[in-house]
Formats: sequence, C-alpha cells, structure tokens
Amino acid sequence: MYQDRVRLASLQGKVMSAAQAAEMIQDGMTVGMSGFTRAGEAKAVPQALADRAAKNPFSITLMTGASLGNDLDKQLTEAGVLARRMPFQVDTTLRKAINDGKVMFTDQHLSETVELLRNQQLKPVDVAVIEAVAITEEGGIVPTTSVGNSASFAILAKKVIVEINLSQPMTLEGLHDIYIPTYRPFREPIPVVRTDSRIGLPYIPIDPSKIEAVVISEKQDSCSTVLEPDDETRAIARHLVSFFEGEVAAGRLTERLLPLQAGIGSIANSVLHGLIDSPFKDMTMYSEVLQDSTFDLFDAGKLRYASGCSITLSERKNAEVFDHLPNYKDRIILRPQEISNHPEVIRRLGIIAINTALEFDLYGNVNSTHVCGTRMMNGIGGSGDFARNAHLAIFVTKSIAKGGDISSVVPMVSHVDHTEHDVDILVTDQGLADLRGLAPRERARKVIDHCVHPDYRPQLQDYFERACAKGGHTPHLLGEALSWHQRLEEAGSMRIEEPMLA
Amino acid sequence: MYQDRVRLASLQGKVMSAAQAAEMIQDGMTVGMSGFTRAGEAKAVPQALADRAAKNPFSITLMTGASLGNDLDKQLTEAGVLARRMPFQVDTTLRKAINDGKVMFTDQHLSETVELLRNQQLKPVDVAVIEAVAITEEGGIVPTTSVGNSASFAILAKKVIVEINLSQPMTLEGLHDIYIPTYRPFREPIPVVRTDSRIGLPYIPIDPSKIEAVVISEKQDSCSTVLEPDDETRAIARHLVSFFEGEVAAGRLTERLLPLQAGIGSIANSVLHGLIDSPFKDMTMYSEVLQDSTFDLFDAGKLRYASGCSITLSERKNAEVFDHLPNYKDRIILRPQEISNHPEVIRRLGIIAINTALEFDLYGNVNSTHVCGTRMMNGIGGSGDFARNAHLAIFVTKSIAKGGDISSVVPMVSHVDHTEHDVDILVTDQGLADLRGLAPRERARKVIDHCVHPDYRPQLQDYFERACAKGGHTPHLLGEALSWHQRLEEAGSMRIEEPMLA
Repeated sequence: MYQDRVRLASLQGKVMSAAQAAEMIQDGMTVGMSGFTRAGEAKAVPQALADRAAKNPFSITLMTGASLGNDLDKQLTEAGVLARRMPFQVDTTLRKAINDGKVMFTDQHLSETVELLRNQQLKPVDVAVIEAVAITEEGGIVPTTSVGNSASFAILAKKVIVEINLSQPMTLEGLHDIYIPTYRPFREPIPVVRTDSRIGLPYIPIDPSKIEAVVISEKQDSCSTVLEPDDETRAIARHLVSFFEGEVAAGRLTERLLPLQAGIGSIANSVLHGLIDSPFKDMTMYSEVLQDSTFDLFDAGKLRYASGCSITLSERKNAEVFDHLPNYKDRIILRPQEISNHPEVIRRLGIIAINTALEFDLYGNVNSTHVCGTRMMNGIGGSGDFARNAHLAIFVTKSIAKGGDISSVVPMVSHVDHTEHDVDILVTDQGLADLRGLAPRERARKVIDHCVHPDYRPQLQDYFERACAKGGHTPHLLGEALSWHQRLEEAGSMRIEEPMLA
Repeated sequence: MYQDRVRLASLQGKVMSAAQAAEMIQDGMTVGMSGFTRAGEAKAVPQALADRAAKNPFSITLMTGASLGNDLDKQLTEAGVLARRMPFQVDTTLRKAINDGKVMFTDQHLSETVELLRNQQLKPVDVAVIEAVAITEEGGIVPTTSVGNSASFAILAKKVIVEINLSQPMTLEGLHDIYIPTYRPFREPIPVVRTDSRIGLPYIPIDPSKIEAVVISEKQDSCSTVLEPDDETRAIARHLVSFFEGEVAAGRLTERLLPLQAGIGSIANSVLHGLIDSPFKDMTMYSEVLQDSTFDLFDAGKLRYASGCSITLSERKNAEVFDHLPNYKDRIILRPQEISNHPEVIRRLGIIAINTALEFDLYGNVNSTHVCGTRMMNGIGGSGDFARNAHLAIFVTKSIAKGGDISSVVPMVSHVDHTEHDVDILVTDQGLADLRGLAPRERARKVIDHCVHPDYRPQLQDYFERACAKGGHTPHLLGEALSWHQRLEEAGSMRIEEPMLA
C-alpha cells in the first residue's frame, strides 16, 4: 500500500497508527517536529500525543521550525504536553501559558536552532516527526509545504517518525533544496550566490533504518489568516514604493531592486502587494515564507524568482496555487530555514528586509515581541537574521493601535529586539524615516517628523526636547522613558488626559 | 629620497608637507582615515587639520577604522573640525562633545561602515588619508599596524593622501591580507575557511594617479593603556577557564577550543592572559585587535595563529614584539575590519567571542555603550559582529563598579546593544551564568545565583520575585525597571539605603 508514497519497500511494514508511533515519545524527551508558519507540520502524531496526555500526563521539549497549524500548539498546551517550546509560536493558548510561566519558551533567531543542536548546545533530539509527501526509493524524506528545521531534526534525531500526508500534492516533490552546512572546523562557504542557486538535494537524506514508524494522515494545512490591505497598510506600502523609487533615482538600487524578504503577517503581506502597481520589475525574493503576495506578484509578471522555507496561503489563494503548482515550480524553491535565514547568504545577496514592529522608539530601537516589555506575543522569528545583515533593514507598523490608545512610536521601547544599529528605515501610515548614517538626535527628529501619529506628536516632541536639555548622546529621561507603557497598563491608554504636558 | 619607502618613482614628486596636503581637505568634506584602536592612524595630516582650523574654522565628517591615538580626536574636537564622526571613538574630549550633542556620532557595527559606503548609503569619501610603511613599485599602499577600513577608504575615495611613517618598521610589509568583497549582485563567498587563510594582497591596490600627496611622518603609535590583571579580572578568567574545561569534558569543544575573539580593554585582555595557565593548546584567534595577551600566548606556546585587523600593545610589550617581528610574522595576519569582523566568516569558523559589558540585566540583555542609558562611552565596536554569529557569545564585567555604588547587574539595562537572543554566557568575578537554551525566568535565576554581587543580590531577587508575581514571559515592573539607574543619577549610588526593600 502507498507504494507511490513509501517507495522504499522495507519501510512499508512500518506503517502504523499515530497512537502507536506516538508511543516512541515519552516523558522528558526532546522532540523535533516539522512545521513552519502553519505549513507542513506533522499533524497526526502531535494530536495523538495530546490525546494520550489527557489520560496519562507527560511532558516534552518541543522544537519546530516555527508556528504550527491545526491548533496543535493549543491542544498540546491544554493537555500539558509542553514543558519547553522553541523557537517560535503564534498560538493564543500557548502564549498565555508562556506568559504565566507554565511553559518555558526559548525565543530564538530562526537560523540558529539547528546550529545549536548540531553543536550540542541544546539537548539532543530524541525523536523527529516529519511530514512528507513521500519517502524515496533510498529512504530520503520529501517534505511537504515547509522545510523549516525538518532536515536537521531528522538527521540529528535518534529515531524518526514520518507522517505521509495524502492531502499534500505529489507535485511538491522537486521543489525542495536540502543543504546542510558542513561541520566546524571544516565548514565551507554556503554556495548560495543567487536567489535561485540550487545547492542540495530534493529530499532529506537520512539512514532509513532510523525511520521507525510511518504514519498516514490526510489533514490539510491550516490556511493563513492574513487580513486584506486597509487604508493604513496601503499608505505604508505607498511610502515604501516611493522610497524605493528614490533609491533607484539615486542609483543605489536598480529597477529590479534587490532580493526581497517580508515577514509574515498582514502588514508585510500588504506592503508586498503594493509592489504590484510599482514601476519595478524582474524582482526576486529571498525570504522565509512565501505568502499570497508572492504568488500575486508572480501572476502580475513582477516577480522572477522566490526562495523561501515554507508556503503559507489564504483560503482564496491556496486552491489557485496548488491546483497549478507546476506553473510556478521552476520559479520557487524551499530551503531549510538555516539557509533561507543564514546571515552569510543574507549579507552576500544584499536583501531588502521588511519586517513588522510591535513598536519602535525615538532612536529607532525596535520591539518585535513583548507587549509592555513583559508579555510575549509570538517571538523574534527570522527578523533578526534578516535585519542585521540586510542591505536595507526596514520595519513597518501602523502608527497607532487599539483605536489610538496605543502609539506604536514611543520614547523608549519596553523591550529591544533590534537595536538602533540594525534599523535603517521605519515606516508607518504617517510616513517614512530614513535613518541611515544619522546620530541618535537626528534619528529622533526624523521619527517625530515622519512616523508618529499626530495625536502623539506633541507628547513625543516634548519628551525629546526635555531629554535633550538634560543631555547625552541618546537623550532620555529615565523616570519617564517607560511612562507611556505604564499609563497604558494602568489607565488603558498612552494618552495624557490633560491638555498640558507634565 | 625615501626610495625604499616610495618605490613608484612618479610619486616621489608628490612628497609635501602635512599642511600642504591637508589643503585638499575642505569644509563639509567626508574624510576617511586609517587607524584602529590607536594603531596605524594617520598622524601628520589630522594634526595639520587641527592646526589650520584653530585659525580658520571648518568642519568635516571623519570616518576611521576605530579609535585614534596621539590624542588626535581630542585635538580635532577642540579645534572644531568634527561635525560628524563614525564608527567608533574612545576619547574623553570627543565623548563629551558627543554627549553634549555638538558632534554627531554614528555608532556602527565595525564590519558595516565600508559596506554602507560601497552601497552609497553614506556620503562618499572625498579624501582618504592612509598611514603606510611604503608604496610599492605599482603604487600599492602597504599599511602599518592596522588595516581597519583603510583599503576601502583608499579604493572608494576621490583623492588619497599617503602618510609614510618612518617609525613604522619595514618588517610590517607582508603581514597584511587585503581582500575586498565583490560587488552585489555578483558577490562570491568570502574564501576565509581557517584563521590562517590568506585570500588577498599584501598591499592596498589602487590607481596610483589618485595619490595626490605623500607626507612623511615619524610619530609613533600611542601605546595601549590596558591595566594589569587584578583580583576581579583573575576571578573572571578562572570562571571562564573552568567553563571551557567543562565544555571540553562534555565533548562540545576540543582542547584547541575554537578561534578566540576578545574585545579591547583590560578585562578581555586579562581573560586571555588566564589562558596561559590553562590546559588548552594549539589555540587560534580570529579577532579585531591583537593585544599584549596575544603575544604572551604565543610566547607561552599556547597559540598557533592569530588573525586581526590591528596590533595595539602596551609600552612593555611594544618593543619586545616589534624588535622581533620576524619571529611572529608567519603566525599573524592583519585583515580589513570588514573581513576580521565579517558575519559570514564568524558564523563559519564558530568563534568564541569574549566582549566586555558595561552592564547586563536579569534576562541577559547587554549594554556595551551608554552610561545610564544616555551618555555614550565608546561605541559598540565589533562586539555585535562577533556576538550575534559566535559559537559562544560571552560577555564579561566586574560585578560592581565605583566602590560598589554601581551594580553591573541590573533589573533592566538602560540601553540594549546585545539582546538576550545573542548572549550565551555571562561572567563576573562572582561566577558564570550559562544561559544557553533557557527561557527568561530561568536565565534570571542563573544571573541572580552566579553573577550579581552579594550586596545587590537580595535587591535583585526581590525585584525578580515581585515581577514574576505580576507575570509575563519576561517579568518586569515598569515603574521600577530603571529605578536603579535613577537612584544612581540622583543619589550617586544604586544601593537602597533602608534595609527594608520597597
């Protein structure tokens, strides 16, 4: 059975139920699972783990590529399976458990997890659970809609469970490019020199004797929940397109721009949509997630090639793309997230990195993760891998949130994920601040003039002036620096009620 | 005259006084000068600029590799020559001008300055002023005790002034390895695969017609002012050696360790000295500055090879090394700082990066630059280039400063240069916290148990417990997070006077 999917005959006898396979995973183990931004996660085995733990409690360390779909993080959390989780998540239930200190969450640059595993700086993976479209004649694992950390998990794990997902189209085979950096101290350069460099194998090469179970599943990936562009995100896109036009006019970019990266989510997706009606052409992407906008740009004839580590689409776009995958196949490639996000490659190619900020401050420090400095949202993801090494590190956000009770531009961010050294361009619906080459006081003036919402401008200007009067390279009033966040926590709004400033 | 130093005959007619050469530099220009950590800076022309400006005021943007010796930043500041300065400095007078907002200082990762120049993201260099031991028969410039940004400055500048320094020994020739990354989008991998990879030329290759002046100077480099090891720095070194021994025992390192990088300064220098009496051998360095400790490790037979971008020695060590340079020459190499600090190479080689923190916090965020969040000390330097991409990112500091009025371990750092994602190991005289793979609450317990000074431990423990009670992935009390710094500013000490905690 499943001869076209499990082509190595010796593995056909290892087909078993998810519950049986899940028995391999015991209390205290470290498990590495496929899955990146709701794409290509193992589906049956984690569900079986949650079911079992509801009766017989146990807990594990769970590593993935990034977020899981099908509410798996929710179910695993509710069943108490997660003692430790890394390197990223987006689930509401898990988020609460993390913020309550019940699940230990290690928030990592997405390029680094498998490097740490390989160097034995994290506990070794006992079991890897990898979703696949097929196992090749030699026992190679063909991933589905994401590569994420799957290849290194499978290679480094003691035992491997493969979930063959019959709902994932066989046409995915050939899309992946699995390359693992050689071990130090003999590591060679990673040979990606263009977005379309193919440097590895179309499957994960492992010793097939490590595959101890094959589970058949049929559940589909969850669709993405990105929102359609709105007035604010369209304004952000307009500011950015106009900035790129200026860069082309100044000779710093060509009309092909440079390879684009965009973080996941509605704002970044919307910004990419803005490029459909731009004068640029023959563009390329070197990104993590290939989202709706990637395929819309292909369809508009704007994009030449896209490299990523997962494909995550909305319900609208999903059928369209997967029904016509062969049409796109020679223009896309899926790599391990270590390679899609590798500092070496990002610096070499000169990426234009567009990521979403939760908030940023006067001086261009960016908070991507922590609400009011304490409560984790999702994690830093790949934004640090890209921003630090990019040709242009761009962060975008709406200038206000919660109906204006929150200003995304604050005197001092309550948590720093990207320091001022790593942030070139800030964009809100209000405008764009080009911070390149500027000193902190100059950066502050750009941020005040171009990014902050008018409702908060006088308040921010006042803070800055009084801080400058006190002095310093990066002027601040320590007693007030976090007062906007305190006011939000205590009074539900960052606004100062009195018309007179303190 | 100077035939052995100015070997291209056509340039011998361009020898002129520093004052004459300095006339090329006019108000508003951008000038790129050699010099990295008080080594190999142009000496005569900047002095002439300061002298001229004292009579006829003008100002420029000055870029260097890093800090200058011979009090040049002081004199240029006092003469009002510096409108803008990047990417690093260590001078007291300049520091004050920066903190007063009089000089615009752009604090950059040291690997990035020339990348930005090459991409036209900074204003172009009008004039480069490069100290050299010689100009070759073809017009190539042979740098002196540092390479820093000199090669790219000379290559990108419209005009070049070469200062031939007769006090710099001719034996320096052959030590340098000048490699410039190819332009995007055709950039190839940087072919450094070992600390001793020689990939470029022993001189800076430029069109000699750009050399419009040759100035002869004789002033020596300033010696470094590192302090001898003391009880605290020896304790830090002991904790670190013992940690490395554990890593070897666990099979994560061999007795050769991995290539070492150490920041400039007394603490890092002292830590490296601690390796003299360690069980490790055949070690290598891939660092910025080759300091006393580098040569002491050579002399002790512990070090096999050292790659850097400058040599900065104390008075004691200076004569010793330069009188016997041929003895070391096949074991050292000086590269452009773009290469010594390149993320690509650092990630590839797997560096052990040891840098000094000004302060760090409960969760492992590090402040390297700003006193009380506002006043710049020196700049981030190369610490970010190394820490982000290292095999081990280690930060060291004494647990207290100013006779105990300052705790270097605080609830929340007042400025973030290195985020918790980039910090693996923290060491003070009190002990070592291994933060790898841990969640913030776990990191905090390690920091409290191992790093904070006993005088501040109850205070920090109390903060942490009350913050945890409030909740969050990274628990904080926003109203108190910066209160230690406020107390320092207002009362001169971070200590709480009352025995009862607030």
